[in-house]
Amino acid sequence: MSDSSPVPETRVLAVASHVVSGYVGNKIAVFSMQSLGCDVAALNTVQFSNHTGYRQWTGSRVSAQEITELYQGLKQSYLDDFDMMLSGYVPGAPALEAVGQIAQELKRKAKPKPGSFFWVLDPVMGDNGKLYVAPDVVPVYKSLVHHADLVLPNQFEAELLSDVEITDMPSIARAIQVMHERYGIPHIIITSVSLPHPDHPVSSLSVVGSSMTSDRRARAFKIVFPAIDCYFCGTGDMFAALMVVRMREAVHNDSGEGLLTNRESWLSDDSVDALDLPLARAAEKVLASMHEVLTKTAETMERTVKKAAAELAAGADGAGPEAEEKKLHLLKSKAAELRLVRHLDSLRFPKVEFRATKL
Amino acid sequence: MSDSSPVPETRVLAVASHVVSGYVGNKIAVFSMQSLGCDVAALNTVQFSNHTGYRQWTGSRVSAQEITELYQGLKQSYLDDFDMMLSGYVPGAPALEAVGQIAQELKRKAKPKPGSFFWVLDPVMGDNGKLYVAPDVVPVYKSLVHHADLVLPNQFEAELLSDVEITDMPSIARAIQVMHERYGIPHIIITSVSLPHPDHPVSSLSVVGSSMTSDRRARAFKIVFPAIDCYFCGTGDMFAALMVVRMREAVHNDSGEGLLTNRESWLSDDSVDALDLPLARAAEKVLASMHEVLTKTAETMERTVKKAAAELAAGADGAGPEAEEKKLHLLKSKAAELRLVRHLDSLRFPKVEFRATKL
Repeated sequence: MSDSSPVPETRVLAVASHVVSGYVGNKIAVFSMQSLGCDVAALNTVQFSNHTGYRQWTGSRVSAQEITELYQGLKQSYLDDFDMMLSGYVPGAPALEAVGQIAQELKRKAKPKPGSFFWVLDPVMGDNGKLYVAPDVVPVYKSLVHHADLVLPNQFEAELLSDVEITDMPSIARAIQVMHERYGIPHIIITSVSLPHPDHPVSSLSVVGSSMTSDRRARAFKIVFPAIDCYFCGTGDMFAALMVVRMREAVHNDSGEGLLTNRESWLSDDSVDALDLPLARAAEKVLASMHEVLTKTAETMERTVKKAAAELAAGADGAGPEAEEKKLHLLKSKAAELRLVRHLDSLRFPKVEFRATKL
Repeated sequence: MSDSSPVPETRVLAVASHVVSGYVGNKIAVFSMQSLGCDVAALNTVQFSNHTGYRQWTGSRVSAQEITELYQGLKQSYLDDFDMMLSGYVPGAPALEAVGQIAQELKRKAKPKPGSFFWVLDPVMGDNGKLYVAPDVVPVYKSLVHHADLVLPNQFEAELLSDVEITDMPSIARAIQVMHERYGIPHIIITSVSLPHPDHPVSSLSVVGSSMTSDRRARAFKIVFPAIDCYFCGTGDMFAALMVVRMREAVHNDSGEGLLTNRESWLSDDSVDALDLPLARAAEKVLASMHEVLTKTAETMERTVKKAAAELAAGADGAGPEAEEKKLHLLKSKAAELRLVRHLDSLRFPKVEFRATKL
């Protein structure tokens, strides 16, 4: 492998939003995958000035028709030779259907060569009990997930897909089992799980993952890691992008004789234990990178926000408390942008601290 | 400096085209600057499936109004705090005027703090004697260049800006002198200069650069490097992006006491010789990175194209010679895409081989 890329040549189609400033959607996903050696085709579903967490933005969406045309443009020039696809935020049901069509076409094309195409689907619908897409997007995701190889819902999205209310570790295990059974999703990771458990420190989060067996039984693991008391945007997108690379790496490393990479959906033998899954290895590395980048972002953020708040308080420009609060929110949002580009080594050489354990 | 970023915290506004697949415009510029530690705001002027060298593509342009609105979106959220700006391909005169307005506004805003904003302008108009933008774009560039800090024309674009026909080294020196005098452009680099010279090997190219003195006299140098017999797209965009980073680095390294960075357009004292200019140091590093990446791209390309040609010849699918020629052109275009992501170390740690010499 050239330079220090952890993966063999990998061509990825990444479909997600683009922001001019800041790090969410394709803006963080594309850089994350590129800096680990992937050749990324970036199909942007929107171009916004900044992410919507700022509460104000400009820019426009790309229509379903345009998404389809861009893909046709790739196809007519033999540029649709993708090894993997990552799909993130897509605005509205028609656009999501267009993206689903692309993924299905790539899956069909890869049929004669099992394992030659792998779709990572991040079903972006909402968070913390709140839907932030139009309600008609939910059934589209439900109709698409059975084509995906790896699905990355957060806790709320896992509830939407499984119709299981998640309140504790046993119910999350049920939700995973339902998603394997109902949709046949080979690999699942539920991100940012915040559930009480006697073994977990108070301020911790976990991800819960599973790769199914040939009869769709879950092989579930969890990885517990310290929560950082700060709301960052783009973490889900970064997680998904790094999972693309690290899953490819783990499967490639696993299959000394190239067996797993030639297998439909890269599914391990039924004899492989949950803790020995490539999915677990991949998630451990991804969380290590994430934790380093988030820690460094939080450090700088605290300094920046303190300074901004002091300046605002001292300024007293007579703009009124409402305007001042708005300005502080905007400055905080900027300070919370993931500081990835200054910490490339955290992406490339993560030090794994948090290990997968049995659920 | 965090990790191994060669520059202090640097926030860049990059305005250029976006292609889904491949590496031209912002697609290569943004990654180049990010992987060297810059926080890049990427304002995409088009979203095309692939670059136009393939002779077919899909996608759409972003209007002048949308460009202005995206910038307004940044401004209203305090996201217009740029240290540098890089502008590349902009489709059409109205859109270019909109980009020019943004640059002028950022220049005005930075006026009270000399050296706090630096605009690198790549005046994309044509190449090899042929205009590939609408003719009304040329006067817009002529009206804008005097606001830029560093302008990066190729040989043909330098002729358009200076009205000097460039046929040999003396005429290129005249063109540079005219650009300094007429427009007051502080720094100029003319890229991919292909001129006969008794001292140069037959298959070599050069860049010719100059930073003006306080009375607008040129301080010119050249860097000669071996040409690679292959037509690549995106080299100009990669060159410009790396110049942004390396110029910032060179000026930062130069000013032990922070003097140069606080000076309008980062212009060195009149006593500084052409060969000691930060511009020369920067260009040397940029060419080292470029030469490594192009060499590696050419190696892989040769293998890929040979294989594709053999397959096409063996295939004989009865599509006819015209269809086969078209397919070969498309496969060649893909194989010629710059292989940057697999050679990150060539960007980060270039080994300088080609040094600046007097013109």
